[in-house]
Amino acid sequence: MTPSHWYNIIPDLTAPPPPPLHPATMQPVGPDDLAPLFPMELIGQEVSTDRFVEIPQEVLDVYRLWRPTPLIRAHRLEKALQTPARIYYKYEGVSPAGSHKPNTAVPQAYYNAREGVRRLTTETGAGQWGSSLAFACAQFGLECQIWMVRASYDQKPYRRSLMQVYGATVHASPSPVTGAGSKILAENPDSTGSLGIAISEAVEVAGQDPATRYALGSVLNHVLMHQTVIGEEALKQLPERPDLVIGCTGGGSNFAGLAFPFMREHPDITFRAVEPEACPSFTRGRYAYDFGDTAGFTPLLKMHTLGHSFVPDPIHAGGLRYHGMSPLLSHMYELGMFEAVTRSQTECFEAGVRFARTEGIVPAPEPTHALAETIAEALRCKETGEPKVILTALCGHGHFDMAAYDRYLAGEMRDFALPQERIDEALSTLPVTG
Amino acid sequence: MTPSHWYNIIPDLTAPPPPPLHPATMQPVGPDDLAPLFPMELIGQEVSTDRFVEIPQEVLDVYRLWRPTPLIRAHRLEKALQTPARIYYKYEGVSPAGSHKPNTAVPQAYYNAREGVRRLTTETGAGQWGSSLAFACAQFGLECQIWMVRASYDQKPYRRSLMQVYGATVHASPSPVTGAGSKILAENPDSTGSLGIAISEAVEVAGQDPATRYALGSVLNHVLMHQTVIGEEALKQLPERPDLVIGCTGGGSNFAGLAFPFMREHPDITFRAVEPEACPSFTRGRYAYDFGDTAGFTPLLKMHTLGHSFVPDPIHAGGLRYHGMSPLLSHMYELGMFEAVTRSQTECFEAGVRFARTEGIVPAPEPTHALAETIAEALRCKETGEPKVILTALCGHGHFDMAAYDRYLAGEMRDFALPQERIDEALSTLPVTG
Repeated sequence: MTPSHWYNIIPDLTAPPPPPLHPATMQPVGPDDLAPLFPMELIGQEVSTDRFVEIPQEVLDVYRLWRPTPLIRAHRLEKALQTPARIYYKYEGVSPAGSHKPNTAVPQAYYNAREGVRRLTTETGAGQWGSSLAFACAQFGLECQIWMVRASYDQKPYRRSLMQVYGATVHASPSPVTGAGSKILAENPDSTGSLGIAISEAVEVAGQDPATRYALGSVLNHVLMHQTVIGEEALKQLPERPDLVIGCTGGGSNFAGLAFPFMREHPDITFRAVEPEACPSFTRGRYAYDFGDTAGFTPLLKMHTLGHSFVPDPIHAGGLRYHGMSPLLSHMYELGMFEAVTRSQTECFEAGVRFARTEGIVPAPEPTHALAETIAEALRCKETGEPKVILTALCGHGHFDMAAYDRYLAGEMRDFALPQERIDEALSTLPVTG
Repeated sequence: MTPSHWYNIIPDLTAPPPPPLHPATMQPVGPDDLAPLFPMELIGQEVSTDRFVEIPQEVLDVYRLWRPTPLIRAHRLEKALQTPARIYYKYEGVSPAGSHKPNTAVPQAYYNAREGVRRLTTETGAGQWGSSLAFACAQFGLECQIWMVRASYDQKPYRRSLMQVYGATVHASPSPVTGAGSKILAENPDSTGSLGIAISEAVEVAGQDPATRYALGSVLNHVLMHQTVIGEEALKQLPERPDLVIGCTGGGSNFAGLAFPFMREHPDITFRAVEPEACPSFTRGRYAYDFGDTAGFTPLLKMHTLGHSFVPDPIHAGGLRYHGMSPLLSHMYELGMFEAVTRSQTECFEAGVRFARTEGIVPAPEPTHALAETIAEALRCKETGEPKVILTALCGHGHFDMAAYDRYLAGEMRDFALPQERIDEALSTLPVTG
C-alpha cells in the first residue's frame, strides 16, 4: 500500500523553477557549494529531472512503523455542518513524532548514514521537526544535535523531552557552544533566540566537521518530494475524484506532499494553499530572490517572501511562521497551478475544536488552517447545494499544543492585524539581484 | 477488519465468577440496585451469558475513526536485543484519546444516549479515562462531567485541556459542587484529593438526577468485554500462533481485551499479567471481598486486593495505581488461567526509552510494564535460543507523560520499596463477609 517511489513534479512543469544563487557571485549554486552541508544523494535529488525516485528498502522498513496513514471520510463533521460536500482527510498524526515531518527525516537520516556521516545538526522552533529528525537519527544510529529556539525550549519542555527520549542532544539557542550563539549571548545574555539564529548555529557546527551534516525540514525540493508519499497513498485510498485539495503552507512541504500526485493525475481540479493571516507569503509577499534565514547565511532563493527581516506575530502555529516559502511552490503559484488564501488564528482554533468534537482528533494548530478553509468551503456548498468532494491534509495532532487550546477556550486568544507598512518595511531589506 | 462482536468469556469458564454483594445485606447485587447508576443494556451485559454480543452499527461508525489499530512486528527492537524471539505489539495509541479506553467509552456513551440519558459523570486520575469519555460523549451529544483528582488537575493541565476541547466540564476533586466534596473541603481546604473521593463525587451526582448516569473505565465485566475488540483484531492480524501474551494490569481491561480472544482460540499458550512493584494486587494482594473505592460506597467485589485503604506510592503509571483488580480476572487467576509478575518503575522507563529509540513510539508509563517484561523474556530467549513468539499490548502513547520521561532521563526517578507491613495493615481493614 505504501508507494515504492517518490514523485518529482519538476520535469512535469511547463518551465523549470529558477535556481538558487550564491549571494557573493549571483551565480547559480552548484553541488560543490552544498557538499559541506548535505550528502551527495540529496544534492542529486534536489536537482533531479527523474519523474520518480525509488524509495530505498531501508526507508520503507521505517515508514512501515506508521505508513500507510489513514484516509478518513469526515462523515460526522459533514453531518454537523449539514453540508452536501463530501470531506476526506489524510491523517499524518499517527507517525511517531505526531506529524508528517518523519516522511523526510527518515530518508535524510538514511542517506547521510549511507554516506558515512555520523552526526546531523538542525534547528527547531516549536519542535515538530526536531523530534522527527531525532527519531530518524535513532533509527540509523546517527548522533543528532538540535538547536531549539530558547523561547520554545523554556515554554514547551515536552517537545524537548521527546527529542531527548529519542537520544538527541538539545541546545537552547542561542547557545555558548557555537561562535554565532556566543556572539549573541555576549551582546544579550537574555536573548530568547529566533529560528534564524538557530539555523546559523546548526549550519556552523555542520560546516566544521567532515562527519557532520545539516538537515532541513521543509522548503527544499527534495523535502517536498519525500512528502509525496502522502499524496501517492491518498490517490489509491480515495474512492472518488476530488474537486478540491486543501492544505496549509508554512515552508510548503505538507501541502506539496498531498497535492503533487493529484496535480499529476487530476490537473484540472482546484488546489488551495492556506496560510495564516499573520504570515501571508503567497497572498501579500513578493516573488523575489531572498535569503532563507534571518541572518542572511543561505543561498538566495526565488520565492514568495515577506522579507528575511520580517518577524511574524506569535501565533501558535509555529510551523507556519516563516517569512519565505518553498521556491518550487512559489514558481508553481506563478504558473497558476493553485490558489492561496489566508485564515485568522481564532477561526482556525474554532475549526480545530469543531473537528475534535466531531471527528475525535485534536489537530495541531498548523492544519487547523486547512480545516478552517475546508469548513468554510463545505458551508458554501450548503448554500449552493453543490456536492463537492474535498480532500484535506491533516498533517499532525495537537497533543503537544494543549496550552494554545486552553487559551482559546478561555477566550484569551487574539488575532493580529498586519499593516501593509510592516510588510513594506521588511521587503525594503530584500537583497538586490542582477 | 474490525470485528462485528465483542467476546464474553464468562460462559467459557469452568466456573462463574462470584457475584458482587450489597454491603448492607451481604446478598448478591441485583439489576435494581445498579439501575440508578448504569443503563439497563450495560447492566444486562454485566451478567450476560451470551458468548458474543453484537457491536451496534452506531458504535462501529465511531470505532472506524481509528480501528482496526495496527499490529506491528518489532523487527527493530528484536535486532537491538539480538534475540531469536519474534515480538509483536498491538498498538492502541492511535485512538483519539491516545489509549485503549475509547473502546469502552464509546459503547457506554452510546447505550446511555439510546436510553435517554442526557449526562454522564465519571472520575479520572491522570486523565486517560476522562478524556476518552469526554470524546465519546461528544460523539453522542451527551453532557460530560468529570471529577479529576486535584493533584493531577494542577500538575497535568494538558489532559484536562483535552477533556475541555471535547466539551466536557472538569471539576478539581474534592469540589464544592457535591456533598462529599464539600465535606472534605470543610475539613481540609487544601486536600489534593484521591480517586476514591472523585468516585464518590461522580456517583453522588449521578444518583441525584434521573437523566444522569455514571460510567466506569475498567474493572467491570462489560468494560473488559468491550475491550475484546483488541484481541479479536489481533487474532486476525497475527501471522503466527503466539507462545506468550503479555499485558499490564491496573483494573485489568487492557490485558483482558487482548488476552480473552486468545484464551478462547489458544487456551494452552502462556498469558502473563504485569503489575507495578508498587501496587501488586495479584502477586501480593489477597483474594477477598472488598470495596471498589476508598470510601466504601460501592458494592463488595471478590477480587485480588491490597485493601481499599491502601494508597500506592506515587509512581507515574497512574492507571495502574488501583488497590483492587477486575473481579473477573481475579477469578480467572484463581483458576490458573494466567501468570502474574511485577516490574519496578525504573526498569519500566528503561524499557520505554529502549522501545522509543527502536520502534519510534514513546509508550505511556502503563504499557512500559508489559514492554519491560517482553524485553526480559526476549533476553531469556537469547540465552536459551528459543524462537518464542511474544504478543504484547501497547495500550497507549506517552505524549502527555513527557515530564515523567524527563525525570527518568535526569536520573531523578526512584523505585519504592513496599514493606509487607503496609500491605498487612491495609488488608486488616477488609470488610468481614459472611
